[in-house]
Amino acid sequence: MALRGHVSCLLRAQLRHRSHSRAKSVAVLGAPFSGGQKRRGVEHGPKVIRDAGLIERLSSLDYSVHDFGDLSFQHFEKDEPSLGVNFPRTVGAASQKLSGAVSRAIGAGHTLVMLGGDHSLAIGSVSGHAQQCPDLCLIWVDAHADLNTPMTSPSGNLHGQPVAFMLKELQDKIPDVPGFSWTKPFLSSRDLVYIGLRDVDPGEHHLLKTLGIQYFSMRDIDRLGIQRVMEATLDHLLARKQRPIHLSFDIDGFDPSLAPATGTPVNGGLTYREGIYITEEIHNTGLLSAVDLVEVNPFLGANREAAETTASLAVDVIASSLGQTREGAHQNNFWNPENTKRTLRCLLP
Amino acid sequence: MALRGHVSCLLRAQLRHRSHSRAKSVAVLGAPFSGGQKRRGVEHGPKVIRDAGLIERLSSLDYSVHDFGDLSFQHFEKDEPSLGVNFPRTVGAASQKLSGAVSRAIGAGHTLVMLGGDHSLAIGSVSGHAQQCPDLCLIWVDAHADLNTPMTSPSGNLHGQPVAFMLKELQDKIPDVPGFSWTKPFLSSRDLVYIGLRDVDPGEHHLLKTLGIQYFSMRDIDRLGIQRVMEATLDHLLARKQRPIHLSFDIDGFDPSLAPATGTPVNGGLTYREGIYITEEIHNTGLLSAVDLVEVNPFLGANREAAETTASLAVDVIASSLGQTREGAHQNNFWNPENTKRTLRCLLP
Amino acid sequence: MALRGHVSCLLRAQLRHRSHSRAKSVAVLGAPFSGGQKRRGVEHGPKVIRDAGLIERLSSLDYSVHDFGDLSFQHFEKDEPSLGVNFPRTVGAASQKLSGAVSRAIGAGHTLVMLGGDHSLAIGSVSGHAQQCPDLCLIWVDAHADLNTPMTSPSGNLHGQPVAFMLKELQDKIPDVPGFSWTKPFLSSRDLVYIGLRDVDPGEHHLLKTLGIQYFSMRDIDRLGIQRVMEATLDHLLARKQRPIHLSFDIDGFDPSLAPATGTPVNGGLTYREGIYITEEIHNTGLLSAVDLVEVNPFLGANREAAETTASLAVDVIASSLGQTREGAHQNNFWNPENTKRTLRCLLP
Repeated sequence: MALRGHVSCLLRAQLRHRSHSRAKSVAVLGAPFSGGQKRRGVEHGPKVIRDAGLIERLSSLDYSVHDFGDLSFQHFEKDEPSLGVNFPRTVGAASQKLSGAVSRAIGAGHTLVMLGGDHSLAIGSVSGHAQQCPDLCLIWVDAHADLNTPMTSPSGNLHGQPVAFMLKELQDKIPDVPGFSWTKPFLSSRDLVYIGLRDVDPGEHHLLKTLGIQYFSMRDIDRLGIQRVMEATLDHLLARKQRPIHLSFDIDGFDPSLAPATGTPVNGGLTYREGIYITEEIHNTGLLSAVDLVEVNPFLGANREAAETTASLAVDVIASSLGQTREGAHQNNFWNPENTKRTLRCLLP
Repeated sequence: MALRGHVSCLLRAQLRHRSHSRAKSVAVLGAPFSGGQKRRGVEHGPKVIRDAGLIERLSSLDYSVHDFGDLSFQHFEKDEPSLGVNFPRTVGAASQKLSGAVSRAIGAGHTLVMLGGDHSLAIGSVSGHAQQCPDLCLIWVDAHADLNTPMTSPSGNLHGQPVAFMLKELQDKIPDVPGFSWTKPFLSSRDLVYIGLRDVDPGEHHLLKTLGIQYFSMRDIDRLGIQRVMEATLDHLLARKQRPIHLSFDIDGFDPSLAPATGTPVNGGLTYREGIYITEEIHNTGLLSAVDLVEVNPFLGANREAAETTASLAVDVIASSLGQTREGAHQNNFWNPENTKRTLRCLLP
Repeated sequence: MALRGHVSCLLRAQLRHRSHSRAKSVAVLGAPFSGGQKRRGVEHGPKVIRDAGLIERLSSLDYSVHDFGDLSFQHFEKDEPSLGVNFPRTVGAASQKLSGAVSRAIGAGHTLVMLGGDHSLAIGSVSGHAQQCPDLCLIWVDAHADLNTPMTSPSGNLHGQPVAFMLKELQDKIPDVPGFSWTKPFLSSRDLVYIGLRDVDPGEHHLLKTLGIQYFSMRDIDRLGIQRVMEATLDHLLARKQRPIHLSFDIDGFDPSLAPATGTPVNGGLTYREGIYITEEIHNTGLLSAVDLVEVNPFLGANREAAETTASLAVDVIASSLGQTREGAHQNNFWNPENTKRTLRCLLP
């Protein structure tokens, strides 16, 4: 299946790249899961993001939207910490289930939108994507590197570790955690770029440097500006070859003033405009194949408005990833007499 | 009158450009009008902007300030929509009245400040300005292009259409709307630059591209930075010749966090500093001849403070357009013994 | 003492520059003083900054932290204005006391953190620093230049005048104010750079221009970007020779939305990220020898949260000045088996 999927990924990517006019199809998949961390509420992320108008917005962008609803996940009664990792079996099983669903949706030709839930889910969504598109690359927008191994994690929470479970270079360094026998590392560290980091643990920093991972901290964005950061990101990932992009977007990449309803906010984050610019640039490659939007927790933030603001921001990020534009747009067939008789009367020849 | 006015415009502009020390005169004209859109409250814009200290601020900049008070506008009882346009006669008559008042004020040698009201008023203020200064150029700061024609407008509200009524290139494309027989297009599309766009309708996008209008969306500002945007704006408008500038500033060009009390806010707008930089650069040309400040609606926003914040921002924009500076300033006659005896005792020779 | 201090400053600076691993020592000194201005509350700055976790944060950066507590200052009962200056004897005596304490702390080998209190205190802290390190340079982050002389000050408050009391070029221009006979100017105007100015009085502007002081207003930051501003700042101060840096940081350098609890807020200030970038760059020189953090006034701001936000920001600024990083870090001895047995098991060889 991988080979067939691989060819299909390339074809779809190239077709999308050449033509914006043919019908596009997006699959929305909710993952109401919070087992990768300790704060309740993030399992309601899919609901509040949908309530903020996601489906209508994507439809207005001329997508054929397939909402697959929410996955249901099993919570293991007996799920003792193992090797310092919290809820290993619960997280492992959730990721496995999500992985299968993502693989099927992408195999069926959809662009995937996964709504978390916490960021441990990315183990499932990226691996499912990789089953279909083994040469994908990964852009990780986040305040945190989520690169701890079970051995270096200060908290033991798996939402701080998903990338470590993906990287081939760490294959022999990740112990056998119960719940994760179904997966093995599939991503090279050179196929990953981080954007927005500003709270990096010592063990993560050591790995970033040792593995030579390309990352742009907020300091880098301050130095270079978001325009050059995106140029460098896309050049790093796509210069050698065009290939599918997986965007894994943690809402805490944004500044807490914009995204207050999240579990681990860190001051000094992305501005609204930087976040939108990142997604516009990714959309413009024509290669985006899957988006995770995670860590919206409506139980957090000072009030109800905080949750609504955060969910609305999540919708903007997803819509912009999928083609919503600030510069405006008009269809190539804007002059088609059947569609625009009324318009024709007043515009230029 | 046009020729005399034209010469007068150039002379005034050049005199201002060469000498900052001679007495300067500004006319403030309120236009409490809301007929170009459907939300009540924007007619109170002139009052709240004055209450926020506009006149005192301009006086502190060493202007001779002439406050002409508010115009009073007629509301037509029978003003049925025509060609899909709402309140055509009411808007047309208001614009005509404003046009005359603006023309007289500029003809009398004042720099004009027009306080809206909604942005449909710009039909009046820019056309009145153009009567005196036919070679003016126009800088339009706004989240929206306000370039719909009656045929493309999704809402039918005239505050989304004023630019279409000005452009010579659209002369044959604008139907005869009742109330507008007094005016005809007077501006070439190459004499217009937009800054801050981020919500552009398809019909507007088509016109922007077809007419080759120079515009800087928020995405362009993200890419280029405000410094290069202003360089390009002024180069586009002034490189061939020095001429009067009309600045039409919709407060919704700013981010809604800064200007919440407005009718059609759009996320991801100008920062305070970008807005001030725009106006500083325009002031520094020495060619600013008229400013519109529109769409402050004190009935909107979450609370009273929202309205005050928005009005105070409007004052800052106008003051910065007219010479308020962040770098500080001192008069050329700072050492004049009559003025600064006290100062002289302690400063350097 | 000056010579010994001077050598010690250079040695310490160079040692710090070469090695980040040896034990570092920081002295924290509270200065609960408000006599340089008229608003009550700024004397509680040291308490709220400590309450926001300063000591713990610095300890987490592997400093040996010596908290010297708060100085106690005398308030003169009979302290009539003199030459238009308010509370001259009270401010003079407070500065003198602070100067001695700062000199002793720096002489003892600590990096100094002075918690204000209002900005008049800088007369004391910079002069005390200069006693030990006569060739220091000064970076002044502030919305205001604080460069009025007693003769030009519009308010007569000394927190708007401290820099004038430091500059050798103004030696003959400062009248004999009671309370200040203990100090004389010690800093050349070329050894000072301002960052963040946006509210500059005419007398200050005249001095800035006459003395050729290097300053970066918010407009300059808008034009150049903070990266180039810091490059130019450090080049201006350090290109000729490496020498100790005194950072005098007024919290009102930040935008009032970030630092509401302060006495003279001015719109359009530094962003959080710009403030942090400034301090990161200063830290990275390895030459920072003393930091003032002043003008946090917990009585101001809309509510209790405003004060806490402002104090927390102050902690971030100090921590970033002293090495807290957004890019992450790990110790050179990260692989030392005694420290990282657990880590070793899972990371790369």
